[in-house]
Amino acid sequence: MPYIQIHSQNFFDNFHTLSQAISPNNPQKLAIVLKDNAYGHGLKEIATLAKKCGIISCFVKNIQEALEVIDWFPHISILYPNALENPSLFKQCLESPNIYFCISALEKLPDYPPLSRIELKINTGMNRNGIAYNSLKEAFELIVKNKLQLVGIFTHNGFGDNFGCEFYTQNAVFLAVKKEVLKLCEKYSLPKPRFHSLCSSAGLRVNKDLSIPQSLQDDCYRIGIAFYGYLCQEEILNIPIHLKPIASLWAKKISSRMLKKGERVGYGGISVLSRDCVVSTYDIGYGDGLFRLREGMELYTKEGFKILPPASMDCLSVESEKEEICVFDNVEKWAEAFNTIPYEILVHLHSSIPKKII
Amino acid sequence: MPYIQIHSQNFFDNFHTLSQAISPNNPQKLAIVLKDNAYGHGLKEIATLAKKCGIISCFVKNIQEALEVIDWFPHISILYPNALENPSLFKQCLESPNIYFCISALEKLPDYPPLSRIELKINTGMNRNGIAYNSLKEAFELIVKNKLQLVGIFTHNGFGDNFGCEFYTQNAVFLAVKKEVLKLCEKYSLPKPRFHSLCSSAGLRVNKDLSIPQSLQDDCYRIGIAFYGYLCQEEILNIPIHLKPIASLWAKKISSRMLKKGERVGYGGISVLSRDCVVSTYDIGYGDGLFRLREGMELYTKEGFKILPPASMDCLSVESEKEEICVFDNVEKWAEAFNTIPYEILVHLHSSIPKKII
Repeated sequence: MPYIQIHSQNFFDNFHTLSQAISPNNPQKLAIVLKDNAYGHGLKEIATLAKKCGIISCFVKNIQEALEVIDWFPHISILYPNALENPSLFKQCLESPNIYFCISALEKLPDYPPLSRIELKINTGMNRNGIAYNSLKEAFELIVKNKLQLVGIFTHNGFGDNFGCEFYTQNAVFLAVKKEVLKLCEKYSLPKPRFHSLCSSAGLRVNKDLSIPQSLQDDCYRIGIAFYGYLCQEEILNIPIHLKPIASLWAKKISSRMLKKGERVGYGGISVLSRDCVVSTYDIGYGDGLFRLREGMELYTKEGFKILPPASMDCLSVESEKEEICVFDNVEKWAEAFNTIPYEILVHLHSSIPKKII
Repeated sequence: MPYIQIHSQNFFDNFHTLSQAISPNNPQKLAIVLKDNAYGHGLKEIATLAKKCGIISCFVKNIQEALEVIDWFPHISILYPNALENPSLFKQCLESPNIYFCISALEKLPDYPPLSRIELKINTGMNRNGIAYNSLKEAFELIVKNKLQLVGIFTHNGFGDNFGCEFYTQNAVFLAVKKEVLKLCEKYSLPKPRFHSLCSSAGLRVNKDLSIPQSLQDDCYRIGIAFYGYLCQEEILNIPIHLKPIASLWAKKISSRMLKKGERVGYGGISVLSRDCVVSTYDIGYGDGLFRLREGMELYTKEGFKILPPASMDCLSVESEKEEICVFDNVEKWAEAFNTIPYEILVHLHSSIPKKII
């Protein structure tokens, strides 16, 4: 079977680099985004490493993921809490003081019984999820009426990877939100919730404006892709930063054959050999969630062996005779070939691929 | 949570259509390819439907998949038997008379203890997996020496979807293989193994040449994508055939907002609204294995609602206010948008998405 190797030292190095760059005085402000099986890296595997770094906050996708890491973090936020669909799991989460439910719409608030711990998401301009800025007052009234515990107020700045003013506009809107929230907390005698708004690139990019009072600063940064070793738009940052991909994908040989120059390989005989060579098949294919190499694409294994398109559902043909190959230890070339971002290449990998931490 | 709806009547209709077209006198010659979680449709769900149709042979990916359907079919072939990596599961499979191991390389034969039931794969020109034609004699010697049970001899014609002579060449080579196999069986007093070589399109396309004696005809057809409702190159067939996609993908609303013409949505504000409308987010994203809609792509839900790029990892923004949407009930437009084949769109969907059979 193929497997994903997780390089723990690379993860630790990334943690060190990111905490130095974002929050050197308080590394615990770095929360880790573990949603979607830790972007395909293995939820439990990455949670283990995060715990070793002393990370105390994490963000998961749903109730199922929260319960998998329930014992490992003091603060676990469920970004998409599929609450009503799983009454028994929901109850388990409600009873766990370290689990918080992220709420993206006013009409979801009544789903939560008294004392539920919630984090309220505000739309600050991405126009995706979150309640409107001008619904804040109504939200607070519902929270008080329903006796919910307001643990956090957050937004998602969707412009961290883009030039232009929107990144700064969103930050300004969230600052206004925070001011409004503090007033509402005072009015209703609620404790101040934690604030967060920034993902990997945004967290690295934002100017830590020390003139902003402590109470209006973000309390944590939601770091996802950077922990896994990637940044999408490095040139947008004003500091150089060196991150290390933590995952490499390995596959084992199924069979080999010596072929002559001009012989054809695979569906439709698409690959034509330019020289006599040994071609082997390896046990990973697009059925494992890897992207399907197609005609004209040039990708190589880590060792430099040419992968011959097209990929099959369960195997790759490669100009190699090794028993095992490293399909990649960095997905940037794959992301480029498929005109996408590293996130998608990684998160599509099926959870059934075994993980080995080294 | 999103879910995949499996339309059982469409599956039954496809079975009827395919058995009429391929083997009207003996529908049991149709085997189903269930590998890779039944191409993303859910292994157990599709196995249930296949059993209801009276299908007796199936092909799965590995030992784990075989054990999931062990009680349901008299003939279960493991295409990529990860035997040595899972000694205890391997033992379980060895003890089950209905499980066969497909062998793609001579050097794998010694991994199997006496009495193991094997199907030997022959390379007939795809140059991917399978032993060479001229190694047949050696393979038989090893099979006899190691006291293996030879259940099948097969190949994979990788040219079913292509014009050109290769499709016919592979069939001719396999006919020669079958003749050679019959001689070797006679020589070693082995019972005749079953023969198979054709997948969906190839099975529909091949001329059933009745002048070929019964003993040299294929004993089963490995039907995969056609059962799921697709054919990649319909125009290559000389008969019209109408198949029905059996899976539809559904997602539930997370939040809605009324937006004005000119407002922007999503990462980088990529989508700009051409009119005032309600935009809602739905709980499926590329983190679930769906392909990531990006700038410039035009895709619509089944109901005709525009999906606004870019897709997020956990949600889609759609010009809709419905509580639930059908993201697709046919993946052809998605395959086209991503320059790939329906197989890849379907098989990338994560197994964690619940299935509902209707």
